[in-house]
Amino acid sequence: MNTTDQQSVCFNDIRQAASRIQDYVLTTPAVPAETLSRSVGADLFFKCENLQHIGAFKARGACNAVLQLTDEQAAAGVVTHSSGNHAAALARAARTRGIAAHIVMPHNSSAAKIAAVRGLGVEPRFCEPTAAARAEMADQVAAETGATLVHPYNDPHIIAGQGTATLEFLQQVTDLDVLVVPVGGGGLASGALIAARALQPDLEVIGAEPAWADDAIRSLKAGSMQPPERFDSIADGLRAPLGSLTYPIISQLIDDILPVSEDMIREATRQSICQTRLVVEPSGAVPLGAVLANGSRFAGRRVGLIISGGNAELDVFARILSSSE
Amino acid sequence: MNTTDQQSVCFNDIRQAASRIQDYVLTTPAVPAETLSRSVGADLFFKCENLQHIGAFKARGACNAVLQLTDEQAAAGVVTHSSGNHAAALARAARTRGIAAHIVMPHNSSAAKIAAVRGLGVEPRFCEPTAAARAEMADQVAAETGATLVHPYNDPHIIAGQGTATLEFLQQVTDLDVLVVPVGGGGLASGALIAARALQPDLEVIGAEPAWADDAIRSLKAGSMQPPERFDSIADGLRAPLGSLTYPIISQLIDDILPVSEDMIREATRQSICQTRLVVEPSGAVPLGAVLANGSRFAGRRVGLIISGGNAELDVFARILSSSE
Repeated sequence: MNTTDQQSVCFNDIRQAASRIQDYVLTTPAVPAETLSRSVGADLFFKCENLQHIGAFKARGACNAVLQLTDEQAAAGVVTHSSGNHAAALARAARTRGIAAHIVMPHNSSAAKIAAVRGLGVEPRFCEPTAAARAEMADQVAAETGATLVHPYNDPHIIAGQGTATLEFLQQVTDLDVLVVPVGGGGLASGALIAARALQPDLEVIGAEPAWADDAIRSLKAGSMQPPERFDSIADGLRAPLGSLTYPIISQLIDDILPVSEDMIREATRQSICQTRLVVEPSGAVPLGAVLANGSRFAGRRVGLIISGGNAELDVFARILSSSE
Repeated sequence: MNTTDQQSVCFNDIRQAASRIQDYVLTTPAVPAETLSRSVGADLFFKCENLQHIGAFKARGACNAVLQLTDEQAAAGVVTHSSGNHAAALARAARTRGIAAHIVMPHNSSAAKIAAVRGLGVEPRFCEPTAAARAEMADQVAAETGATLVHPYNDPHIIAGQGTATLEFLQQVTDLDVLVVPVGGGGLASGALIAARALQPDLEVIGAEPAWADDAIRSLKAGSMQPPERFDSIADGLRAPLGSLTYPIISQLIDDILPVSEDMIREATRQSICQTRLVVEPSGAVPLGAVLANGSRFAGRRVGLIISGGNAELDVFARILSSSE
């Protein structure tokens, strides 16, 4: 499978993004997971985007988007709607450039997510918790202020920025046999695929998607974008459907996407915390869940897992930890 | 303050240890903590020994000790008594050299600690949970098997091995103003002091000790080794008293030792987990607790914290997380 000319993003965009954002994001560690490797029978390496600024890879794409605004665009600020990590990522990226960020959040967003945005000096604008209400308020803010809308994943600058995580990872750990990436809206996975196909064409790239948010699996099977059917996976960062830019990249370049059950997502979150001492949010543990549930497929191989983020309510972690054994 | 000739370990021992153990331990990441830095008003850097193999810096010293055994000594194996991270560290170090490890553990050791040792292929020998019973059984095993006793901290090879964490840290993050290290038995702190005084003599080095396990603070004040008064700090890795080798190093080289309350240890554990996405055991969070409790002392400075480990029972983390706010 090769990159095709239909794609909105090419490897050079990722390389340029890496140099553009390097002073604003961390080169996150790639850590071998010795104990888990022994129990799985494979060599596992964790790319720790949970240790990225704001606790998620989203810092990369948001910086790449904000840094490419013209001065005129920048003066009018940026706007997005998000209940998750993209909200904090865009607020932080705007802060690094000294421009305004307008963040529309559902009024039932978690206290921690709201506090993260406020901690970056931005007072969120609250809306009803529906997709329509969020988009409507964001459009309204854009119209009033002239701010540039920065979509959480369906944007070439965002995809290129997220691809820098994989660019780094493949430089840090050579000779991986397989890379496992979480699939939600598809920004991270798209960037990973473009980087991997350019740097190491024989690398198997496997997506991992909650079985309760399996629109990508169904879309690839159907050959066309399929809507989400439910929105209640504990992996809240992966509930969003693929977008018009990410669907073609993923459908053309990915080797496979594995569904991961809710129980296995919890188990992988627990094992990440107690075996690798990394705080991984449920969405970030989905790749490990795919490995744990499909051991024979990964046995004896060098497996890279992108740990997308580490933000969840403390009580989510407390419940997952106290329900063990 | 300079290194004196009374010391059992010199900087060259640490440099040699680093090269001896480099294929057996991780170069752990040193991560800037952006959000915590903003709230504290200082630049905080975490040296992530919780991401070390077996989840603690103890892997370093144990490897350094085991790799220095003669072939004849090695053939008879090693023995220690430990209810904590040193048990797993020595079991792992022995495994890497292919020799026997005899691990004496109190029968009331936590299930996770026992499982960690078993996971490394060693069946612990259980004893009564008293210091006398532990030492007696370890001595007995040594007499029966000829195994070499490897003390968790009062051993020059262990101190030199632990010093490699600071050697790495000061190479990874230059221009630190102050380094904060946890103080328990003093192996990690002694190694840190010897490395720091050699590499960066003007670096302030501050110890952090649970107020409920403050024998080092009392010993420095009294000018002689003082016994522990209680053994119930949540920071279980720091309950041990200084040893005959670590007391002189620490008393001669350290700038200050700050006591940290139990509440502040819990708060620092919680903040590490939710603000830096690192699983830090209570003992490993004591340096952050010292910074949080003494903000003005660290304000505006570049502060390095050695995060010593990330192993605790899941229910300890669950309780700490669910008791927030």
